[in-house]
Amino acid sequence: MIKNTKVNAAILIIGNEILSGRTQDTNTSTIAHWLNSIGVKVAEVRVIPDIESTIIETVNHLRKIHDYLFTTGGIGPTHDDITAQSISKAFNLKYEIHKEAFKILEAYYKIGEFNEGRQKMVWMPRDANLILNPTSGAPGFNVENVFCLPGVPSILKSMLGGLQNNIVGGNPILSHTISLRTVESEIAKSLTDVQDNNKDIEIGSYPFFQAGKLGVSIVIRSEDQSKIDKCSKEILNFIDKKNIELVDR
Amino acid sequence: MIKNTKVNAAILIIGNEILSGRTQDTNTSTIAHWLNSIGVKVAEVRVIPDIESTIIETVNHLRKIHDYLFTTGGIGPTHDDITAQSISKAFNLKYEIHKEAFKILEAYYKIGEFNEGRQKMVWMPRDANLILNPTSGAPGFNVENVFCLPGVPSILKSMLGGLQNNIVGGNPILSHTISLRTVESEIAKSLTDVQDNNKDIEIGSYPFFQAGKLGVSIVIRSEDQSKIDKCSKEILNFIDKKNIELVDR
Repeated sequence: MIKNTKVNAAILIIGNEILSGRTQDTNTSTIAHWLNSIGVKVAEVRVIPDIESTIIETVNHLRKIHDYLFTTGGIGPTHDDITAQSISKAFNLKYEIHKEAFKILEAYYKIGEFNEGRQKMVWMPRDANLILNPTSGAPGFNVENVFCLPGVPSILKSMLGGLQNNIVGGNPILSHTISLRTVESEIAKSLTDVQDNNKDIEIGSYPFFQAGKLGVSIVIRSEDQSKIDKCSKEILNFIDKKNIELVDR
Repeated sequence: MIKNTKVNAAILIIGNEILSGRTQDTNTSTIAHWLNSIGVKVAEVRVIPDIESTIIETVNHLRKIHDYLFTTGGIGPTHDDITAQSISKAFNLKYEIHKEAFKILEAYYKIGEFNEGRQKMVWMPRDANLILNPTSGAPGFNVENVFCLPGVPSILKSMLGGLQNNIVGGNPILSHTISLRTVESEIAKSLTDVQDNNKDIEIGSYPFFQAGKLGVSIVIRSEDQSKIDKCSKEILNFIDKKNIELVDR
């Protein structure tokens, strides 16, 4: 089995509503969880406004420095949905009616309901691959290593399953969490020692507040379960010595 | 009154836990709402990992192209908290004990509790301005146009009020929302006409699903209330003609 540890992706959230604070983005977390499970690490996320030149510039930058780029938002029927035309320009492809997408939506809507607004959703970069939408008909699309998904979280979620075969990931990224009844400063020194001892493992420390009590979750991430186990043992060792209580979360 | 319509900011979320999908970022929305209220528009958001070179490079890019940069995360006591040392390097400033911060935490903790882990939190770029923390003692800091805040949402929230006087914004960005019992494709054409008629206004269209029914929220944003009112009237005009029902949200 070829071990590819370097597959990474960027997520590009397109939408004024996220930048204004009106809408809380949840797509980052959804996409990241899914990518982790197929061995792709999210290297960065950007949120940008519905401005064509910004979309083109950002897409052209991110698609070149990462293995995959996933965009969300801006593929609906209204005037502020400009992702498809921007991606067309980014790739220098004609922006035109996608025949397969047209057929899908023609079949999806009742006669007379496939109006001008809805027809906008079949305009795409020439020869784009469709990303099927089991929830609401209108497909997303893919050009080279760029995958364009809708902004509505429930619709986006339903489309990821069908994408799985298009993504070549590395080994799944595994993680183990140890939650403790303590504060970060009590374990900071010992945790630094464990990290120094296990340089190729990602160890994160995250304070939490639950049921009126403070705690810390230590998250160990690696592609290698045996390395996680070794690291975990070292952590359990020092928390035992310090008499720190474990917490179920 | 000087009308400054161009004050903008970037938000930089620093933390592997957001990129892995483990933690849902909510700080973007908190900071964006607060900035809007003082006339600062968020131009972009980035999420990056706890990697020193990435933090330095990104901070140095964003602080030069935006009026303000707000970072969140990485200022706690553990090994993965590297924001302060990275910002020091970005500005070419010495990373050292900040005397005022030391005094604050010395007074905050009981005798004997101001341990090595906690003392890490007073290491900052030389001569940084402190951002006071009414919740948990450890201050954030500011160098030039860069403001470094913690990642824990409740603590971050409590620190924004004290920052207000350090930010020179433009006119507050006002918004008005009209929610309708319809789908986007029904209003797409008319909404495009209104947008074409009001080019300097930001009009967004956002589908929603509430109590088993579909709807669309139209959000109008501008610094100028009279322009919002004019735009709003044009929208109410076409929805009246189309017999579309208004919804309270």
